Amino acid sequence: MASNSFGTHFRFTTWGESHGPEIGVVIDGCPPGIEVDLAAAMAARAPGQSPWTSPRKEPDTPEVVSGVLNGRTTGAPIGIRIRNQDGRSSAYQGMEQVLRPGHATATYLHKYGTHDHRGGGRASARETACRVAAGAIAQKLLEGAGITVTAELTEVAGIATNGLTEEVCNAIEEIHAAGDSCGGIVTMTATGVPPGLGDPIYEKLEANLAKAMLSIPACKGFEIGSGFAAARMRGSEHNDPFLSPTETATNHAGGVLGGISNGMPIVCRAAFKPTSSIEKPQQTVDAEGNPITYTLPEGSRHDPCVAIRAVPVVQAMGALVLADAWLAQLPVRNNCFTAT
Amino acid sequence: MASNSFGTHFRFTTWGESHGPEIGVVIDGCPPGIEVDLAAAMAARAPGQSPWTSPRKEPDTPEVVSGVLNGRTTGAPIGIRIRNQDGRSSAYQGMEQVLRPGHATATYLHKYGTHDHRGGGRASARETACRVAAGAIAQKLLEGAGITVTAELTEVAGIATNGLTEEVCNAIEEIHAAGDSCGGIVTMTATGVPPGLGDPIYEKLEANLAKAMLSIPACKGFEIGSGFAAARMRGSEHNDPFLSPTETATNHAGGVLGGISNGMPIVCRAAFKPTSSIEKPQQTVDAEGNPITYTLPEGSRHDPCVAIRAVPVVQAMGALVLADAWLAQLPVRNNCFTAT
Amino acid sequence: MASNSFGTHFRFTTWGESHGPEIGVVIDGCPPGIEVDLAAAMAARAPGQSPWTSPRKEPDTPEVVSGVLNGRTTGAPIGIRIRNQDGRSSAYQGMEQVLRPGHATATYLHKYGTHDHRGGGRASARETACRVAAGAIAQKLLEGAGITVTAELTEVAGIATNGLTEEVCNAIEEIHAAGDSCGGIVTMTATGVPPGLGDPIYEKLEANLAKAMLSIPACKGFEIGSGFAAARMRGSEHNDPFLSPTETATNHAGGVLGGISNGMPIVCRAAFKPTSSIEKPQQTVDAEGNPITYTLPEGSRHDPCVAIRAVPVVQAMGALVLADAWLAQLPVRNNCFTAT
Amino acid sequence: MASNSFGTHFRFTTWGESHGPEIGVVIDGCPPGIEVDLAAAMAARAPGQSPWTSPRKEPDTPEVVSGVLNGRTTGAPIGIRIRNQDGRSSAYQGMEQVLRPGHATATYLHKYGTHDHRGGGRASARETACRVAAGAIAQKLLEGAGITVTAELTEVAGIATNGLTEEVCNAIEEIHAAGDSCGGIVTMTATGVPPGLGDPIYEKLEANLAKAMLSIPACKGFEIGSGFAAARMRGSEHNDPFLSPTETATNHAGGVLGGISNGMPIVCRAAFKPTSSIEKPQQTVDAEGNPITYTLPEGSRHDPCVAIRAVPVVQAMGALVLADAWLAQLPVRNNCFTAT
Repeated sequence: MASNSFGTHFRFTTWGESHGPEIGVVIDGCPPGIEVDLAAAMAARAPGQSPWTSPRKEPDTPEVVSGVLNGRTTGAPIGIRIRNQDGRSSAYQGMEQVLRPGHATATYLHKYGTHDHRGGGRASARETACRVAAGAIAQKLLEGAGITVTAELTEVAGIATNGLTEEVCNAIEEIHAAGDSCGGIVTMTATGVPPGLGDPIYEKLEANLAKAMLSIPACKGFEIGSGFAAARMRGSEHNDPFLSPTETATNHAGGVLGGISNGMPIVCRAAFKPTSSIEKPQQTVDAEGNPITYTLPEGSRHDPCVAIRAVPVVQAMGALVLADAWLAQLPVRNNCFTAT
Repeated sequence: MASNSFGTHFRFTTWGESHGPEIGVVIDGCPPGIEVDLAAAMAARAPGQSPWTSPRKEPDTPEVVSGVLNGRTTGAPIGIRIRNQDGRSSAYQGMEQVLRPGHATATYLHKYGTHDHRGGGRASARETACRVAAGAIAQKLLEGAGITVTAELTEVAGIATNGLTEEVCNAIEEIHAAGDSCGGIVTMTATGVPPGLGDPIYEKLEANLAKAMLSIPACKGFEIGSGFAAARMRGSEHNDPFLSPTETATNHAGGVLGGISNGMPIVCRAAFKPTSSIEKPQQTVDAEGNPITYTLPEGSRHDPCVAIRAVPVVQAMGALVLADAWLAQLPVRNNCFTAT
Repeated sequence: MASNSFGTHFRFTTWGESHGPEIGVVIDGCPPGIEVDLAAAMAARAPGQSPWTSPRKEPDTPEVVSGVLNGRTTGAPIGIRIRNQDGRSSAYQGMEQVLRPGHATATYLHKYGTHDHRGGGRASARETACRVAAGAIAQKLLEGAGITVTAELTEVAGIATNGLTEEVCNAIEEIHAAGDSCGGIVTMTATGVPPGLGDPIYEKLEANLAKAMLSIPACKGFEIGSGFAAARMRGSEHNDPFLSPTETATNHAGGVLGGISNGMPIVCRAAFKPTSSIEKPQQTVDAEGNPITYTLPEGSRHDPCVAIRAVPVVQAMGALVLADAWLAQLPVRNNCFTAT
Repeated sequence: MASNSFGTHFRFTTWGESHGPEIGVVIDGCPPGIEVDLAAAMAARAPGQSPWTSPRKEPDTPEVVSGVLNGRTTGAPIGIRIRNQDGRSSAYQGMEQVLRPGHATATYLHKYGTHDHRGGGRASARETACRVAAGAIAQKLLEGAGITVTAELTEVAGIATNGLTEEVCNAIEEIHAAGDSCGGIVTMTATGVPPGLGDPIYEKLEANLAKAMLSIPACKGFEIGSGFAAARMRGSEHNDPFLSPTETATNHAGGVLGGISNGMPIVCRAAFKPTSSIEKPQQTVDAEGNPITYTLPEGSRHDPCVAIRAVPVVQAMGALVLADAWLAQLPVRNNCFTAT
């Protein structure tokens, strides 16, 4: 099944394995005239920037090969490719048949009868570099509409935070030193969103945001506004009183009502499990079901907390959902037909 | 934007307003030979069955008008309609311009410039009757594949439960008597799911489940397996050790790895906010922004806890996602090409 | 596979068999504010109006059951159903296993292992009543954009014509009397089409028109502008010289260049085979392959020339393609982004 | 609007301009285990092979950058790129504002407000190299199912032929020498097609073939089986008598009944207009509407008969439609559900 595309109006498709020659993305449906500048977004995502993120060194320089003329989109599909330069396939020798706990090796083998196990193949977080490139263009489009999308690390290993504070760094360091890993939560906020984005019933804005976030590797949960806490609230407490047709006194709704933006900031959160690759030895089986003790090969690379590197990916996916919703609502928004 | 359809292979589309003459659904892509029997599923969803669910009385008898011959599907689109018999539009007079807190009135007005406010129009939970009818057919299809999908109320007003226990009933009763409402959590479980369902990257099984659940009215959160709790766990604790290629010792993953089912039960949860309609007076504004105190009209109907009636809807949406994934994977699963 | 929908932005889905209780259509993605009046369009299509079209008597009164308030669309899905009142199933007894030449009985049996043979089931031209209803709404939408779509019978039984002239009527009468049937050609013309509709590469306007026309029962060919005659022309003769950026001296292109409307009228033609149901006895086999002589049951109904009744269907499908293209291009057309 | 993808199950997306650094294609949904060998197909399409096809010299060596391991597909998206090596952009200087007759310059300018005019940009036939690469993989998949797709030049400049015969070559040479161009017809034939491919109503096999062919640059018409000639036939002549459930005595239907393959060869034809680029001077206007005489710049390149180079593209598009239909019908074909 075709499963490597996301979006309907602002639609992108990715390809490439973690240890192949390159990864790439093509964006289809972007209107003409949007400025394309990927450098800042890619820098925010690049690995190898902190002691706890993967030490893989990739310059991650995206090459725009089509759809852009004089720095602006032309309406043609935008092809972008990112070469892989630091793929050490040899580190993965002997692992072809190990069903690594928490990894997709077993399920890819079940589904396809084959798995490009090197560095996770398609299942690797490296694919998310393509999302960030596409997201940077989506964000520029939204900028023109006055919409800003940001993401922030708001919880790590159970510690509420507003980023990589000293307390958080120390906690990660300790966990890392013990050969273990930890999870975290990333919060996305979109401001300047006009009312009317998102569509009723099955294309609700929150439904597409949920799908977008759960498509990120290691994501296990999504909530918007009050989220799971809403289940423990009373209606009188949860209902946001309107102060004006586009403003509410509180924002338990997280910026959406009935699937459509209401003028308030859109706030949602994505939960990430702890990194599956850990240095501690683990009990598992091989593809034939024989029990084995699995130890991470020396020289293999991993982040102790994937949530850190998920931050720009959450931001990108949020921007991509909103760009899609923005384009979707223009025919109605412009009242082209209501006057007839 | 077309937004009233769900699914790619097992695809359904709904229409109809809460207070129009009827609601309906058409299912496209269902293979031939599936037995169609909607009675049991509809009965589980029907309103008016407990003191706390909406007292609206609808027999909710679905009429199958196409696609079925001698009790089995023919491969043609299955048209189903359900007549509205108890729509009391008069109860909603004078509410056209009230921006009811927690409701979609404001956002529909922003988006469309018009809103069929009577009983919520399209935004009403009545639309979910169509999902339950479609889900009943999906479930019969899955039955043939050995897959069972169930849903259960697991938390109400902060009380962990396994259904409508006496404790839960008392709690709801008290909240209801106070003119208020409460939220809850519904857990979906799918057993007998073979490994290999779901697709990598953007059509991950958990991504489509998340979208499905967030498309249900009042749903504010989704999690699979360990979900948000994963954010507070260590990798050594979260990783599920394989006992065999299709079995793990624990199931923090919730039955999916890399977006694909791994042979374990699929377990996910959906959080529902408290019912927006409450009897307590609320401060809000009208469509012109004038402050008003809003009191629910006498005779209007609502559930104090929408999570109760969401149970069969969660089950239906889960079955619909799995039926779609089941059909999607058959070409690969049957190894039609790997032998060439 | 889901195959009963057409369109992306202005999307409709049909259901119902020729001899079931009803047929229906739901239109999803229609903007709010469009006037809905189906009577004129349905009248143009209704059977039983001439001696040569099917004598089946159906009032074909479409009931709009959702998506319309005070005579105008609301943005919600528009559900329409048309009851079948004159389905004489008994006329088809004993035909279950006959592979009728030119009919879909054989292929439905191959594909589904079952076939609702009565009156053609889904394969019946009766399904096209739903297209005409949807097309009437599309046409109203286009009216607001200054676009007019018409269709005309331009060839019958090899006679070039501009409708049901006396010469044509006599020719059909003669063929009918001989127990035979004849084919014809329908020409669609769209005027007032602004330049810029249609999308490059795979969503070319002519590609979607071709798909639309070939989806009509009995259609065997499509051409736009010069069409097949272009294969016999020289470039110097075929190229349309521009008189202004939106006008060409000739219109061999048929109003499109590179898949996009160029401001000239869009002109295309659809070829229809002769009606498969004829009164002459025919040699064929049954589902087991036994040779049989097949004679149309007395009382069965058919048109000697399906092209006559295809006229409003060609018009409807043309309008539906153009409405879809119109909505698709609004985000670019309005230059919402080029100014950033 | 996203318009650079084709297919639902076997889906591909292309990007790249004629004079950019590269063109590329990604194929999504191809099952694992298919052998990938693009050399033969690309050679058949490559320009510069005859005196009448474009003298542009491109080795057209496709680089497979993902989705293939040890020469076979893995189920992951297959990324392919083809570098442009002989793009002489300078030949197009001064033409930015010329509305060249028969070309897409005017419509791209209308739609996007900008046009990468060099060599036609996206509208160039160079994009079709990507289709041929994707088609080669589709054809290998079909090979495993016993299906063969071929295409042949069957008419050039009004001369019926079965390829580039001496008569045809002389005719083209004469037209070319006169500074002019000519059209032609290409016939696609698929043999070994089992009954049951294609879907009723809107995804009819012939409807998707029509869309596929009309998406090829310069294509103006499509017909299947008897095609336009059917409009001049009688039913008694056109109806194909069944000899067995999968064989008919004649094949006026062209291998499809009601949108579904019937076991006979699928035969369809695509008509191509004469090449728009001709050496004769032409009257036209510029983007401001000023009349000008346009003469092809020296050194610019064109085929006097695009139909010649369309042959492998017609074959590729036919294979891509059939591969999509093949995958779509597997769940039904395997009777996975009918036994329940």
